Amino acid sequence: MHTAVDAMKSRLTQIDDLRRAASVLEWDQQTLMPAGGAVARGRQLATLRRLAHDLETTDETLRLVDAAGRETDGRDPGDPDRALYRVGARKVARARYVSSELVGELETHLSASYDAWTRARPAADFDAMRPYLERTVELSRRWAESFPDANHPADPAIAENDPGMDVAQVRALFADLRKELVPLVTEIGKAPAPDTSFLVKDYDVDAQLAFGREVVELLGYDFQRGRSDLTHHPFMTKFGNGDVRITTRVQKNDLTDALFSTIHECGHALYEQNIDASFDGTPLDNGTSSGVHESQSRLWENIVGRSHAFWEHMLPVARARFPEQLGDVSVDAFHRAINRVEPSLIRTDADEVTYNLHVMIRFDLATALLEGELSVKDLPEAWNARYQADLGVTAPSATDGVLQDVHWYVEKIGGLFQGYTLGNVMSAQFYDAACRADSSIPARIGTGDYAPLRRWLVDNLYRHGSVYDPNDLVQRATGEALSIAPFVRYLKRKFGNLYSLEFESPAGA
Amino acid sequence: MHTAVDAMKSRLTQIDDLRRAASVLEWDQQTLMPAGGAVARGRQLATLRRLAHDLETTDETLRLVDAAGRETDGRDPGDPDRALYRVGARKVARARYVSSELVGELETHLSASYDAWTRARPAADFDAMRPYLERTVELSRRWAESFPDANHPADPAIAENDPGMDVAQVRALFADLRKELVPLVTEIGKAPAPDTSFLVKDYDVDAQLAFGREVVELLGYDFQRGRSDLTHHPFMTKFGNGDVRITTRVQKNDLTDALFSTIHECGHALYEQNIDASFDGTPLDNGTSSGVHESQSRLWENIVGRSHAFWEHMLPVARARFPEQLGDVSVDAFHRAINRVEPSLIRTDADEVTYNLHVMIRFDLATALLEGELSVKDLPEAWNARYQADLGVTAPSATDGVLQDVHWYVEKIGGLFQGYTLGNVMSAQFYDAACRADSSIPARIGTGDYAPLRRWLVDNLYRHGSVYDPNDLVQRATGEALSIAPFVRYLKRKFGNLYSLEFESPAGA
Repeated sequence: MHTAVDAMKSRLTQIDDLRRAASVLEWDQQTLMPAGGAVARGRQLATLRRLAHDLETTDETLRLVDAAGRETDGRDPGDPDRALYRVGARKVARARYVSSELVGELETHLSASYDAWTRARPAADFDAMRPYLERTVELSRRWAESFPDANHPADPAIAENDPGMDVAQVRALFADLRKELVPLVTEIGKAPAPDTSFLVKDYDVDAQLAFGREVVELLGYDFQRGRSDLTHHPFMTKFGNGDVRITTRVQKNDLTDALFSTIHECGHALYEQNIDASFDGTPLDNGTSSGVHESQSRLWENIVGRSHAFWEHMLPVARARFPEQLGDVSVDAFHRAINRVEPSLIRTDADEVTYNLHVMIRFDLATALLEGELSVKDLPEAWNARYQADLGVTAPSATDGVLQDVHWYVEKIGGLFQGYTLGNVMSAQFYDAACRADSSIPARIGTGDYAPLRRWLVDNLYRHGSVYDPNDLVQRATGEALSIAPFVRYLKRKFGNLYSLEFESPAGA
Repeated sequence: MHTAVDAMKSRLTQIDDLRRAASVLEWDQQTLMPAGGAVARGRQLATLRRLAHDLETTDETLRLVDAAGRETDGRDPGDPDRALYRVGARKVARARYVSSELVGELETHLSASYDAWTRARPAADFDAMRPYLERTVELSRRWAESFPDANHPADPAIAENDPGMDVAQVRALFADLRKELVPLVTEIGKAPAPDTSFLVKDYDVDAQLAFGREVVELLGYDFQRGRSDLTHHPFMTKFGNGDVRITTRVQKNDLTDALFSTIHECGHALYEQNIDASFDGTPLDNGTSSGVHESQSRLWENIVGRSHAFWEHMLPVARARFPEQLGDVSVDAFHRAINRVEPSLIRTDADEVTYNLHVMIRFDLATALLEGELSVKDLPEAWNARYQADLGVTAPSATDGVLQDVHWYVEKIGGLFQGYTLGNVMSAQFYDAACRADSSIPARIGTGDYAPLRRWLVDNLYRHGSVYDPNDLVQRATGEALSIAPFVRYLKRKFGNLYSLEFESPAGA
């Protein structure tokens, strides 16, 4: 131990080791664990998390972090040691604000709530969840009140997942975006729908898995430093710089479900696999926010993976694996099919245009619950009213309505949804900046060469890990503050072409 | 927390959670981890082990265990709470004897030693390992000296793996056994060797895996509470009462390697899967010693799996999967082939008769090293002399000689080998007792019904976990003290029949 930074790093790495170990246990739980393992696994995970929290909140840890702060005082914000101090100090301060009792109470309550939800959702029984959700709202408020500097009860949870952001910024951005999206959905809804029948033919499961593997390897996912496994809900997880795993699922009668969720998780993984290797074992070895993370999953899934150029190269590759299903499908027809826009009930199945409306509904309702402007008993009605207003659809029951997503029933309220839409917004802004820096990117994608795009992303985003907060990272990487303009422009151009519609250019386009 | 026992249990469970979590990380490392994951995984494992050790040695843990000792004072030794106190107190006392510095020094040294061994073994370069092994001997002596009650420098390591046993007991037992085995090997060596050619035909790898799975399910392994995966070195591991995993390996041109190693690990797993479920999360939820554990792997692998009766039922099952390879092989021929006795160089490939001679050589040499009766520089010569004397073979180089097993190069010396032979000895004693209690057992095995044997083992051994130390468990289960007589009788009867030889009955037969 030579410096205060070394001493802090060693402590933060111990905490990180415990959390990454928990991630290994969770990954195993989701992929391979036999049914009988559940009880012991839950207990082991709780122990690892508690010990990590305990270690993070000791006075000794605070002392180590403070000393590193003094040692790095005045250094450039991009200096990795200074950034590690900043990220470490923030994590320690946040962990110390919340009492262990409240952490325990939340964990116990949310575990019971999740258990109840697994039964209530299929039974469409919102009444069964009401008392749970009321308590979740109450505990979430108490949790938020633990933070002395919060201006709004949603701010601490937003700051936890998207550091440096708050409800005011997100709300303003979402309001502007919603104004653009609702008329777009209406206009597209009047145009004829493309044929998607060839996407839901019989696609062999093993062939789909092999195709997904081929695609992500082409995109740059490194299987020497990761692997792919099957799960019910696909996810990406990281155990260390050299072990970043993705999971996927496959449906026999649907080519796109596995394919696009695999590319989505690959996008998350490309971010994590390309963080500066010297950050391994520290809190810098993570994507910087849920929004920036989602920008990478969505950039690769949608902006690349659902582009015409991508399929110019990839459709022949797919045809070689599925000659009967895709032999007579043109790139144009395929591109139209995978970009079909249709207001629907389920967020996770939504297309690029309607998706963010689903997210905003959840963000607004959760914020209203936290503010006390909306009570849990009125939530189903508010949910249905917003779906009718924004998307023109109403769920036949709570199953596909207010009980649809697990988030509110397994986590504290607030901070859970904004990252999805922030990610979509950022994805277009980053891609624009990449293409400005290297105009060959779109054409190279058309030839199956993703290296130029990946290089820009590694240089400007990935390698930095958590060194920069999201607003700073956007500014540094694109030369501009976070803006919806590139995303709106992208949607209007792409879906205007696809649906032969003329959309007015947004401000700044 | 209502009682002192509850408080102790909660603390011991936290320690157990950390160790089981480490086991999950190790299992993943051996089965699925991508190459890039090694560095972070090593660090995470070290952190988990260090935290477990730290927690085990705090004064608070000692206080909790002592209080539970007072609360359970005077109870029957078989009372689970009293047994938990006894096992917990022993673990805590042992952990506290050894300084953290020495633990760290051993870990660092052995990690470097292992790394050097992976290169030295293929190069047959014992000189490269000499300084490492000299230091290992020195550190192992210092480790042993940490225990104030040890009569011999090998005793603490033996007691760690085989509680209640010591070098005097093991040495006496091994000396008697060696006297029986050496002439047995000599006599068998004069008889004609059986044909084994049909065991090394082309056996499809997937079919071998499916067959192994079928066999262990028939033996009683519960895949709802476990799973089987591929590794280089097969092992069994436990993450909780409901998650006991085995691993295996397969060679295309060898039916027996995968099959018998799978049955071997299944034996370990049957023990762990059948420990009283109420012990989950405590140190009682483990087989009681390395010897008793090995008795179960060897009982199922050898006494059951290499018996004539077993193959009366199982050969038709095997033939259905491998009709070309086994179609014209009789049960007698198969039974002879899988029981071929041949003095050889490699312990892990040895047959039932010669195997224990390999073990004793290692046990005696390690003990001599610890005593200072043998110096590391003379070890290769001592190794070769014993192999020539006991087995009549000499390794062409250190690769298959003194560098053969990883044990001395990755762990402290002493206590590593006796369990293998204790297991073989106990396996026959337990099986005899089972057949005395239920004489239908051998015949039922001949019909593919393993339930009667399993029932006796569950009732008399498995369910008790670590409640009884091995000498007590043997006495309780068999009505007699540990004895080599049943094992020697078993070998003489079985191999006398197989090789048409008349062996003198041992004392007590």
